[in-house]
Amino acid sequence: MDDLRSLGMAIRSGRLSPVEHVDDVVRRLAGDPHNAVVALDAERARAEAAALTEELTQGRWRGPLHGIALGVKDLIDVAGMPTRCGSAVLADAPPAAADAPAVARLRAAGAVVVAKLHTHEFAYGPTGDVAATGPARNPHDPTRITGGSSSGPAAAVAAGLVPLALGTDTGASIRTPAALCGVVGLKPAYGHVPAGGVFPLAETLDTVGLLAGDTHSLAVAWDVLDRAEGTGGGIQPPGVAGVRVGVPMDDYWRPADPVIADAVAAAVGALEKGGARVVELRTPMIDELAATYPVIVGAEAYATHAAWFAERPGDYQPATRARLEAVAGLSARQYVDALRTRRRLVPALRAAVDGVDVLVLPSTRLRATPIGAETADGEPVRPAMLALTSPFNLTGWPAVSVPGAVDGLPAGVQVAGVTLEERGVLRVAAAIERSPCA
Amino acid sequence: MDDLRSLGMAIRSGRLSPVEHVDDVVRRLAGDPHNAVVALDAERARAEAAALTEELTQGRWRGPLHGIALGVKDLIDVAGMPTRCGSAVLADAPPAAADAPAVARLRAAGAVVVAKLHTHEFAYGPTGDVAATGPARNPHDPTRITGGSSSGPAAAVAAGLVPLALGTDTGASIRTPAALCGVVGLKPAYGHVPAGGVFPLAETLDTVGLLAGDTHSLAVAWDVLDRAEGTGGGIQPPGVAGVRVGVPMDDYWRPADPVIADAVAAAVGALEKGGARVVELRTPMIDELAATYPVIVGAEAYATHAAWFAERPGDYQPATRARLEAVAGLSARQYVDALRTRRRLVPALRAAVDGVDVLVLPSTRLRATPIGAETADGEPVRPAMLALTSPFNLTGWPAVSVPGAVDGLPAGVQVAGVTLEERGVLRVAAAIERSPCA
Repeated sequence: MDDLRSLGMAIRSGRLSPVEHVDDVVRRLAGDPHNAVVALDAERARAEAAALTEELTQGRWRGPLHGIALGVKDLIDVAGMPTRCGSAVLADAPPAAADAPAVARLRAAGAVVVAKLHTHEFAYGPTGDVAATGPARNPHDPTRITGGSSSGPAAAVAAGLVPLALGTDTGASIRTPAALCGVVGLKPAYGHVPAGGVFPLAETLDTVGLLAGDTHSLAVAWDVLDRAEGTGGGIQPPGVAGVRVGVPMDDYWRPADPVIADAVAAAVGALEKGGARVVELRTPMIDELAATYPVIVGAEAYATHAAWFAERPGDYQPATRARLEAVAGLSARQYVDALRTRRRLVPALRAAVDGVDVLVLPSTRLRATPIGAETADGEPVRPAMLALTSPFNLTGWPAVSVPGAVDGLPAGVQVAGVTLEERGVLRVAAAIERSPCA
Repeated sequence: MDDLRSLGMAIRSGRLSPVEHVDDVVRRLAGDPHNAVVALDAERARAEAAALTEELTQGRWRGPLHGIALGVKDLIDVAGMPTRCGSAVLADAPPAAADAPAVARLRAAGAVVVAKLHTHEFAYGPTGDVAATGPARNPHDPTRITGGSSSGPAAAVAAGLVPLALGTDTGASIRTPAALCGVVGLKPAYGHVPAGGVFPLAETLDTVGLLAGDTHSLAVAWDVLDRAEGTGGGIQPPGVAGVRVGVPMDDYWRPADPVIADAVAAAVGALEKGGARVVELRTPMIDELAATYPVIVGAEAYATHAAWFAERPGDYQPATRARLEAVAGLSARQYVDALRTRRRLVPALRAAVDGVDVLVLPSTRLRATPIGAETADGEPVRPAMLALTSPFNLTGWPAVSVPGAVDGLPAGVQVAGVTLEERGVLRVAAAIERSPCA
C-alpha cells in the first residue's frame, strides 16, 4: 500500500477517489490472513467515503487525511461499534454511543474508520497472542507474535491492509508491535492526546497514539491528532544536524538478540553521519525505576477489573486471569511506594540524560517470538517485550519505534524524546529509517 | 497582642523595634500555659531581631513582616531545629539542615522564627490532644482540645503569644484548630505553596498555610507566602458587593451544635447585608466524595509510616497506633478506587456549585470538646472535626476558617473558594469577621 502522503496527494488531485481507496482497504481487510481484524464496518465506511468524494467534487478538501482509511484498536470507542477489548467479558458490549475524542479528531479531518482491530485482551500484555478471538499473527511469519497490545494495528499496517491505525500504549503497546511487525509506532507524551473513550489499562500511564508504514505518514497523521495548525507537511525540517543523541550503555538497555543491537548501532551510525552528536551515557536508577511499572499497572488494572473478575473469572483468557491473580493482593502501601519511587526517580533519570535531545535504544530485547512461547532463547518473553519501552511511560516522554536496518524478522529502534517533542522524535526516526540496510 | 498591620506599622515607624517585639513574644511563649510550644529558640530569634533592627536604622525595610515573630508547626523544617512531629519516633531527630521553602519565604521577608509549635502526632488527627508532649490546651478552656493538627499554632495565636503561625492542612489541620480556638486559618489551594521540608501526611492532600488573629493580618502574611508583588495591603478591595455566595443545604453540612449553625446564619446574613447574593444549593455527591478521604489519607500515611511502625510501634501514641493499624490492610484496589471516585466526583461537585464564587458553611460540627473525649453530645469527635473541612482538600480549593459571631467557646465559619482564590476568600471572610455579635 502507498504511504499516506502519496495517497493523500492522489486523493486531492482526483487520481484516486476516497471511494476507490476505501473499497480497496475494505477488500484487503476482508481477506486479512493475520487475525488483525475483529470487526469491519464496510457499509458505513463506504457511505462516508462517498460523502467525502462528493465533498471533493464540490471543492472541499479537509486536509491530508481526507478520505484516508483508518483502523482502530478495539480498545477505543467508535460510535456504533462495540468495544470488546479482545475479551469474552465484553462479548455482549453494546455499540459505543460516541467516538473517542482521538477518533473524532481523525474523523473530522476526513479519516474513514473502516475496522476495529485486534488487541491483546484488555491491553494487558505485550505479545498480542492472548484474546478471545485468538492470537494475532505476524505478517513476517504467521507462527510468530505481532507483539501487543496494539497487535491488530501493527499487523494490519505491516501487511498493507490499511495505511493508518490508532492504538494505545501503556508500557509497550504501540512501540513493541510496531517493532515486531516492522512499522512505525508513536507513543505521544503522556496527556498529549485525550484518553477519553478508551478502555483504561492504567490511568497514570495510558496514552493514545498512531501506527503507520513510515515516519512521514505518521507525522502527517500526528499533525491532525495533535490538532496542530499545520496541514500535514510531514517531517519539517528534515535532518538531524546538531541533534544531541544519547545512547544509554547500562546492561538494562542491552537487547538479548544481537541483530537488534546491530540495528541500533546502524541507526546511531546513520545519525552521526547525518550530523547528530552522539554521546554514551548511564542511567543508574533505571532498574529501581522500572521495577515500579508492574506494581503501578497491576494496581490500576486490578482496580478496574476486580468486580468483573470476581463474578466472571472464566470469561478472561487464562493468561490474563493469571496476571490479574498475581496483582490481586497488592497493598495500598506497595502502590503508594511505587508512585513515590516513580516521582523521585523520573527527575533523577531526567538529570542523568541532561544534555541530550533524544535517547536512541532498542524497542525490545527480542524480535518476534513464537506464538504462545513464554521464553525464547532462555529469555522470558513478556519482560523482553516491555522492559525497554515502559520506562518512557513512567516518564511520560514521547517515544517512537522505527524499523531498524535488518534482513528477516524486523527489529525496532526506539527514539525517546528528552527535550524534543513528538515532531522532533519523528524527525530523528526519519533519519534512522533512511539508513541503508546493513 | 496587636494585629500584624499595627505591629508592622509600629516597627516601620520605629515606635517598636524588632528586638522589643521579639523579646515580648519570647517572654510570652516562655510562659505558655497551653502546651502550645515545643521548642523555643530565643537566642537565635533575638540575634535575628537585632540584625533586622539594625537594617531598619540603615533605612532598609523588607516589608510588612519585617521583624515580626513567627511560630512554626513542628511538622515543618526550620534550619537548626529538629522536626519532631509531636512523636517519640522522632525524639532523636537531628536539627533540620534547611528551612522549608515556606519558612524561607517568610524569613526572607523579615519574619523571625521564634518557636516550633505543638502538632497532633504526625498531623494524623484533628484534635490536637495526641502528642508525645501531651495534649495542647484550648486558651478558651484548658480542659478542652485546641483542634488539630495545627494545635500549637492555633493555641499560640489565640492566646496572644505570637501574632502569626505557619501550619499545615491535609483535611482539617489549619481550619479546625482555628475554629476551635477562635482565630483565622487559611488553607491555600493545593499546590499553591510548596510542601517541601514538611513531613508528609498525605501527599495528594497536604497544604501549607497560615494562622493569624484576624483576616487582615492573615492577608498581609499571605501576600508574602504567595510571593505576590504587593506590599501587604491586606484585604484589597474590601467588601462583598456582588459576590455570589452558595450555602449547601444537604444534611451532610449541618453542624451538630446549634450555636455553630447560628454563627453560620449570622455570617450569611452579614454577607447579604454587605451586598452579596446568597443562594442555597445542594451537593448530592458529597457523602460518596467524602468517603474517599479516610482511604486516601490512610493509604498515603501508612506507606510513610509502615517501616517505622513495624520496628517501633511503641514509639507511637496509642491513638495514632490504632489509626495506623486500621489502615494497614488497605488494598491497592481500595486506594485506586478512592482516587478514581475523587477524580470523578470533584468535577461533579464543581458543577453542582456552579454559579457561585464561594461556599459558606461551618468549619466543624462541634465546638471544642473535652480533651481525650471520643464522643461529645453523642457525636463522634473525630469526624465532627474533619467532615466539613476535608472535602476542600479533596477538591484542592482554598478555604479559610474565620471566627463566627458567638459568645463563649468559639465557632468557626468556613469560606471555601469556588471561583475565588485565597485573597477573594479572605475578603469574604473579612466581611463575616466584621459581622456584629448575635
